[in-house]
Amino acid sequence: MTVAAGEELAAGTVTWLAQASFAPPLLMVGVRADSRLHELVTRRGAFAINVPAGHQEDVASAFFRPSQVQPGTINGYAYEPGPETGAPLLRDLPAWLEARVTDQVRRGDHTVFVAEVINAGLRHPDAAPLRLSDTHWSYGG
Amino acid sequence: MTVAAGEELAAGTVTWLAQASFAPPLLMVGVRADSRLHELVTRRGAFAINVPAGHQEDVASAFFRPSQVQPGTINGYAYEPGPETGAPLLRDLPAWLEARVTDQVRRGDHTVFVAEVINAGLRHPDAAPLRLSDTHWSYGG
Repeated sequence: MTVAAGEELAAGTVTWLAQASFAPPLLMVGVRADSRLHELVTRRGAFAINVPAGHQEDVASAFFRPSQVQPGTINGYAYEPGPETGAPLLRDLPAWLEARVTDQVRRGDHTVFVAEVINAGLRHPDAAPLRLSDTHWSYGG
Repeated sequence: MTVAAGEELAAGTVTWLAQASFAPPLLMVGVRADSRLHELVTRRGAFAINVPAGHQEDVASAFFRPSQVQPGTINGYAYEPGPETGAPLLRDLPAWLEARVTDQVRRGDHTVFVAEVINAGLRHPDAAPLRLSDTHWSYGG
């Protein structure tokens, strides 16, 4: 999950994400309430989701740590700004979407953001997504 | 997903469910806004989740149709009432939990319920859960 708020960027792996409606197309995602990602998503009200492929566990784990931004890369991975949100879209990942926050539930150690998908792209239609059960983790952020 | 509200029971397969917090233990689930399940969960404010095993696609599909309640069975499957919520716990399924609704987001064709897990049980610790990718469905309610 990535976000751009003004000049600031943040990114973090998220484990808990699911669709939440067909019309409008909504998703729901849990984001650690004490994270910088959370702070910027709350401020900006929009974000991007980048979906790793089954063999890209290394990309997912690279975003467990705090975001390191260099010109054109975040945590070492090349990105382009999302057309609708400016949020980083990771060039090496097979699928992405951009979403605008419609609602949030601040209840536990993660906030539930409900967001409308406003843009999406598929770089590699044949890629299978990375599943938590493909990894040795039970939680990844 | 099952619910008991007074004398009324409802059950339905749900596709979109994820954890949403560690402390308190929350989950988030999308429920069709036009369903009887939705009506009873809204009224009762509590429900149960029954997790099918990998080979129990037939159980999942049995709950695509409207609930048929007989003494001791729902849609042909034996249940016992959940200790905390009264919601049907299906005896043939390997795992279950009971949850109390804390928040809801009524935005799309499904409502997002955020709920605190207040009870849980594991009948078959070695069972793997049914995954959507194990089935030929892309959505199951």
